[in-house]
Amino acid sequence: MLPAVISVVGKSNSGKTTFLEKLIGVLKARGYNVGVIKHDTHGFEMDHEGKDSYRLFHAGSASTMIVSDKKCALVKNLPQPLSLDETVNTFFYDVDIVITEGFKRENKQKIEVSRKENSTELLCSDDELIAFVSDYKIDRKAPVYGLNDAEGVAGLLEKKFLNERKAVESHDFLTLRADGKRVGVKDFVQDFIAGGINGMASALRGVENPEVLEIVIRKSGRKKT
Amino acid sequence: MLPAVISVVGKSNSGKTTFLEKLIGVLKARGYNVGVIKHDTHGFEMDHEGKDSYRLFHAGSASTMIVSDKKCALVKNLPQPLSLDETVNTFFYDVDIVITEGFKRENKQKIEVSRKENSTELLCSDDELIAFVSDYKIDRKAPVYGLNDAEGVAGLLEKKFLNERKAVESHDFLTLRADGKRVGVKDFVQDFIAGGINGMASALRGVENPEVLEIVIRKSGRKKT
Repeated sequence: MLPAVISVVGKSNSGKTTFLEKLIGVLKARGYNVGVIKHDTHGFEMDHEGKDSYRLFHAGSASTMIVSDKKCALVKNLPQPLSLDETVNTFFYDVDIVITEGFKRENKQKIEVSRKENSTELLCSDDELIAFVSDYKIDRKAPVYGLNDAEGVAGLLEKKFLNERKAVESHDFLTLRADGKRVGVKDFVQDFIAGGINGMASALRGVENPEVLEIVIRKSGRKKT
Repeated sequence: MLPAVISVVGKSNSGKTTFLEKLIGVLKARGYNVGVIKHDTHGFEMDHEGKDSYRLFHAGSASTMIVSDKKCALVKNLPQPLSLDETVNTFFYDVDIVITEGFKRENKQKIEVSRKENSTELLCSDDELIAFVSDYKIDRKAPVYGLNDAEGVAGLLEKKFLNERKAVESHDFLTLRADGKRVGVKDFVQDFIAGGINGMASALRGVENPEVLEIVIRKSGRKKT
């Protein structure tokens, strides 16, 4: 089951990153694996000039990774822009919830951060909002949480997305991508295809009831015979 | 077809990173997509303290990504260490060749960098070496290239790995992994399984004779029914 994706949006300097830091901390303390995606607007730097890893990140490779036993860092050049859904499918399949900073124009449910001192102009329409995070009274449909109330917002996310996720176990146990694009597959078709594949694969040496089975078929790989 | 993986190894301060930078540049100029993996020994930093992206990388999420239209940077905490093969399978499926810095103990073919001034003690045995990169005469089986001869080494890699890759088209047009481990599948069985899967997938909306078809089945994703 792919993670729920929630976007924290707000005007520049409204306090999005500060609130997001707190929210990540609370969700982590409650035992969830959280993914974060931030749209890069100002440019970012991998490591510091002069360091070996910095040099490799700038040497012109298509993909560069620095890896230790505990974590890895990957920088990938993109031949074409990734959609938010593609990004989640490819890199965040193993977390419980993804919180984005920004991505106002994507069709995800949103939390809007607004600080009186900064601006009281609001960005989102009622139908896309699940909450405000603010230091003043906002007379709109979505509930308002204080700027420091990460616990309250975490509770809302649990109620709305994370508890259900636990209960349902998982909807999608078969993921299918054609040329990198996710293809939706109905439950009974998932059962049918996965049953067929598991049956065929189980006859192979080296496949014994695996937790994860992955298959890639490349048309251009077919041998000329 | 997964990329060839070559390891550039050598004593500390032998000039591995400097040579690697040149080699990446030459391979890129020849039109190849190059992946690089460096084992992290000294620790690395994502961006600079105080910047928003730095704060998010340190807020405690399991996976954090900064993304623009042109590139993305991902930092992932690893519940358990990734093997080199898993790393390549998961993140480098789309490059022509992966060059690692270090990973001396992995069973990949190696290029050893050795600089007279630094140390003339050699690390690798003949059977794992495809070349030396050095500024002195080495009386061993593998050919010796100069410290600046990235063109020469690129030519060797083309001859040994990249041309073959182009020529064969691909041996494996079906790749199957169980729990991240590649499982060898005989040609006629590949035909059989791929035929079955292509048949099933072609009935789905959104799948029209794709170049690449990927399927992932997670046992734990199966619904309790």
